[in-house]
Amino acid sequence: MPTIYHYPLCPFSRSVRLMAGEYGIAFDWVEEKAWDRREEFLHLNPAGTLPVLVTDAGAAICGNTTIFEYIEEAGLVPGISSSLMPADPVARADTRRVIAWFDRKFDDEVTRNLLTEKVDRRFTSHEHGGGPPNGAAVRAGLANIRYHLRYIGFLAARANWLSSDAITYADLCAAAHLSCIDFLGDVPWAEDEGAKAWYARIKSRPSFRPLLSDQVRGITPPGHYADLDF
Amino acid sequence: MPTIYHYPLCPFSRSVRLMAGEYGIAFDWVEEKAWDRREEFLHLNPAGTLPVLVTDAGAAICGNTTIFEYIEEAGLVPGISSSLMPADPVARADTRRVIAWFDRKFDDEVTRNLLTEKVDRRFTSHEHGGGPPNGAAVRAGLANIRYHLRYIGFLAARANWLSSDAITYADLCAAAHLSCIDFLGDVPWAEDEGAKAWYARIKSRPSFRPLLSDQVRGITPPGHYADLDF
Repeated sequence: MPTIYHYPLCPFSRSVRLMAGEYGIAFDWVEEKAWDRREEFLHLNPAGTLPVLVTDAGAAICGNTTIFEYIEEAGLVPGISSSLMPADPVARADTRRVIAWFDRKFDDEVTRNLLTEKVDRRFTSHEHGGGPPNGAAVRAGLANIRYHLRYIGFLAARANWLSSDAITYADLCAAAHLSCIDFLGDVPWAEDEGAKAWYARIKSRPSFRPLLSDQVRGITPPGHYADLDF
Repeated sequence: MPTIYHYPLCPFSRSVRLMAGEYGIAFDWVEEKAWDRREEFLHLNPAGTLPVLVTDAGAAICGNTTIFEYIEEAGLVPGISSSLMPADPVARADTRRVIAWFDRKFDDEVTRNLLTEKVDRRFTSHEHGGGPPNGAAVRAGLANIRYHLRYIGFLAARANWLSSDAITYADLCAAAHLSCIDFLGDVPWAEDEGAKAWYARIKSRPSFRPLLSDQVRGITPPGHYADLDF
């Protein structure tokens, strides 16, 4: 069975866990603390980032979107599932655009300012940049998330899901980031009803359940985190 | 004919220009200054980033890797060309991993510290973060580029090109970033002979010629920038 190295509060890992749940594909899941920079892990992925899928033949597939494309191209998607990637080239491009919005823009403007500051820096050695959260970064993240919620509301009003009438990888990536920030209690859900309704729908899917029971040493999520009627 | 919005010193635009040259695909090229945040451009790509391909039917394909996948999937690659994307799923995953190394890691650690500080900030309004370069960022970029050159040397010693025996999108993305930094005169080529030899090979390809004659107001590239025997 292929192995996936992941971390519970890593949004890139979470989007791959959601994919596995949606498709019903079984993997061996191994928790990796990327900030430890473990030598064997760096051999698998010199960039030192999560997630990494290791095939039965020992090949390392690095990064969430690379894993998605691999799963689609290597024929690992069970025939019964509807695909998380649309068939039409222009629709695929829009799915990839929305993925990049969250994995790059939201990550830069929100996730790094909140999650990296509040979680990763706590566990990282001083030598590698660990320490208390940077207050200015946290304030920027809290300000930036508001317009991202409005953009989610806009996208969810355009079609049933963020990039299509069916759920796609774009929804998984967006929900993965949001769920990590929600674990910290930093999502102002009241700001946008459309975004909240979209999140309630994806949160109630069976693929989401494992994320709602994640535990991280030293961080207690707010009461609404695992509540489907938040 | 499809249109591509690009900027001469944008590494993401440059990798698409190299793709067009390698495949011999004709586009209408329109220069866009992303920092102006032109309203019509934001309608095409709400993220406000380059490059954007607009199809003859008016669909916007946003981002360099999304454009690459679109070109491959929409059947726009001329039959005579050898592909810039390997056929085997594991080899494709390695090409995508190396692309992400440059488009994300190199971009974070080098390009943003040097190019964004020295060029974008000069042209950006004060309100949107313009101003003189941040000296600490520039010093970090100059320090970080050295280990990236060693990594290029390592990859180029592993196969003929960075992710395969044939040239792939990974080489185009890496060369696109390096060429922007080289325009500023900030690549210490003497640090790694293997990286330099790889760059000399890609720089001498016909697809690279348009990049070597780029001109940017107020910035003069060093004498070796356009020299194939640098």
